[in-house]
Amino acid sequence: MDGHERDGVVYVGGDGRQRFFDARGYGRPLADDERERWGANGVALSRVEAAHLLYRGDLDGIEADGRRLDVRTFLARAGDADGRDGAGFLVRFLVYADLRERGFYLSPARERWPNADRRAGGVDFLVYPRGSGPRDGTVEHRVRAVGEREPVAVDSLDGPLLAVVDEESDVTYFETRRPDVSGSADGVPTAGADGTLLSDRAVVWDPPEALYRRAFFGQPLTDGADGGPLQLSLVEAAYLAAAGAVAFDADRPSADRAPPSLSVGGGDGYAAVVARGRAVEGERFDRRLRAYAALRERGVVPKTGFKFGADFRTYAEFDSVDDLGHSELLVRAFPADRSVTPRDLALDVRLAHGVRKRMVFALVGGDGDGVAWRSASRLTP
Amino acid sequence: MDGHERDGVVYVGGDGRQRFFDARGYGRPLADDERERWGANGVALSRVEAAHLLYRGDLDGIEADGRRLDVRTFLARAGDADGRDGAGFLVRFLVYADLRERGFYLSPARERWPNADRRAGGVDFLVYPRGSGPRDGTVEHRVRAVGEREPVAVDSLDGPLLAVVDEESDVTYFETRRPDVSGSADGVPTAGADGTLLSDRAVVWDPPEALYRRAFFGQPLTDGADGGPLQLSLVEAAYLAAAGAVAFDADRPSADRAPPSLSVGGGDGYAAVVARGRAVEGERFDRRLRAYAALRERGVVPKTGFKFGADFRTYAEFDSVDDLGHSELLVRAFPADRSVTPRDLALDVRLAHGVRKRMVFALVGGDGDGVAWRSASRLTP
Repeated sequence: MDGHERDGVVYVGGDGRQRFFDARGYGRPLADDERERWGANGVALSRVEAAHLLYRGDLDGIEADGRRLDVRTFLARAGDADGRDGAGFLVRFLVYADLRERGFYLSPARERWPNADRRAGGVDFLVYPRGSGPRDGTVEHRVRAVGEREPVAVDSLDGPLLAVVDEESDVTYFETRRPDVSGSADGVPTAGADGTLLSDRAVVWDPPEALYRRAFFGQPLTDGADGGPLQLSLVEAAYLAAAGAVAFDADRPSADRAPPSLSVGGGDGYAAVVARGRAVEGERFDRRLRAYAALRERGVVPKTGFKFGADFRTYAEFDSVDDLGHSELLVRAFPADRSVTPRDLALDVRLAHGVRKRMVFALVGGDGDGVAWRSASRLTP
Repeated sequence: MDGHERDGVVYVGGDGRQRFFDARGYGRPLADDERERWGANGVALSRVEAAHLLYRGDLDGIEADGRRLDVRTFLARAGDADGRDGAGFLVRFLVYADLRERGFYLSPARERWPNADRRAGGVDFLVYPRGSGPRDGTVEHRVRAVGEREPVAVDSLDGPLLAVVDEESDVTYFETRRPDVSGSADGVPTAGADGTLLSDRAVVWDPPEALYRRAFFGQPLTDGADGGPLQLSLVEAAYLAAAGAVAFDADRPSADRAPPSLSVGGGDGYAAVVARGRAVEGERFDRRLRAYAALRERGVVPKTGFKFGADFRTYAEFDSVDDLGHSELLVRAFPADRSVTPRDLALDVRLAHGVRKRMVFALVGGDGDGVAWRSASRLTP
């Protein structure tokens, strides 16, 4: 049995509909104008579906441009015709085949599969629950297929399952979503204290006890020395200065542009701390400070994520450092338009998974002062 | 008891030597010319050691430039005077204090601690075995101290313990070395086969069985389908083409500059595969190919490290895919002059640790065709 490719759609006449669509979830029934040409019981297949049937030997050949193609020539031709060097088609084919092998029926997420809008809504495939198919009306996964070399906008990690095909054609799946980032930690202590900037960090020599113990700002300069000097990161120092909780000398030149406006306001030396942060870290400092402030405002306590290669780890249930639970999130602060390679994403997500945390991206600077949240985790469909 | 700073060295007269050097491993005995000025039983301290004694209250003050400094003013002044924004001094102070808290005696790795050569040989401190000190002649760790924002040349990860101070002043330690990368895997199968480039990967439609099963090149196009088509990554394809084991059509334009010369020689279509690799991956392709070839030549089987965010994972004991053991290394291929941020290093090393592998860096292009190997892993001193 042969297929016939016309404008990127592969038609099979005869009993194609029963054989492929009804029985096994390939393709879609024909529209009226298509029935006239291919018969009432024909079926329309996307090229990916047709390639899969060809590969399995369920189709014998596909006639296209006056030639009859076998699986080798069809794959080569479809690949070459589709996007940059044809990678897009092969990637979709490999994801399609992988999900089929996992026992799913799935359809291209578009009506007639023209190449132009292959990624309507950022989705390539609709995957149905195991045991059901395109006629049952339920979708289990919306899947976006990318190659490991294709950068992915972090902003787009907002729902679809991301299927990444690596260079050896293995497929890795990432669940993506807009996470609810919130916790029950208290806000900023109001007690005033004086802080000193010390190169790329800060010290509060005589801190009120609540600052560390009840609100988890800073670290004692010496392990286990209660009530001794407290070291602050510059991000913590800037936040506390903005909140008026710690005052810093403003004898350093203040920021050459205004520091970020945080909801906690602005206190003594805030601009000076921000200027110091920018001096050692550049724009990244503003971004991290805004993510830090957004986390605090959501009742979540951020501490450095350095040991995990992230900007922050966070505690949602913080009550006291004496009763410190497990930190739940690893947070990276990114510019709103940041893209990542799937490889970097795999690294972050794998690490987070290994330490029982969720990887979260804070997108800063997209619209106004808001921070948008995205998250990704491993999933085996 | 006060110290006196002269040219970056802090002198304590009186019984300073007994009190600080003999009893607790701080500083060094005085040289003849110094004895004349400070007395036969004085001691010379580096500023880091002096700051630590000051912080602990073992020194009351330090006289410098005609002023008497306490710990706050001494730290601020030393920080400001030392390197870019003073970060270097504080970082060394925090590492020194951390190692002291862990029960070690340690000394600055230089004779008279001038700032200019503070990092002679890339080392900041000599750390003695627990229970011994500077007079015992044994060194347990050579330590280099860096801040988390300070890029580290990968080439320099060749022996010293890297102590990274994060923004919250926690210290993370990485053991570094030149690893022995070698294994017992067989070389390239000699059986000839034909391959096809298919956009950003390659396929061998009729592979000899040995290619996958006995040498672990490629992946079956369909899971569990023995003897069916084999997918190859472009790196595998290039290596097999160079070895003459798989021939590729050379109808594609060949490389605009010569492909890397690999010890396995060059066969049909090698230049075409390399040209394709460069088209999809740029210079990184050459680098990865050379690292791949070097691993194969050392009897190690590299497969993609995508799931771990690395270039390769490797098997040293490979015999057959039916008896696949645990992969031991994660390998990243870097240009020889590459630097990484400690945060990226922490991410790689932490991930590798979590999956019971060792993180290895392949430095490519340093001298001739050689590849230099470096590795890093976590260590708690």
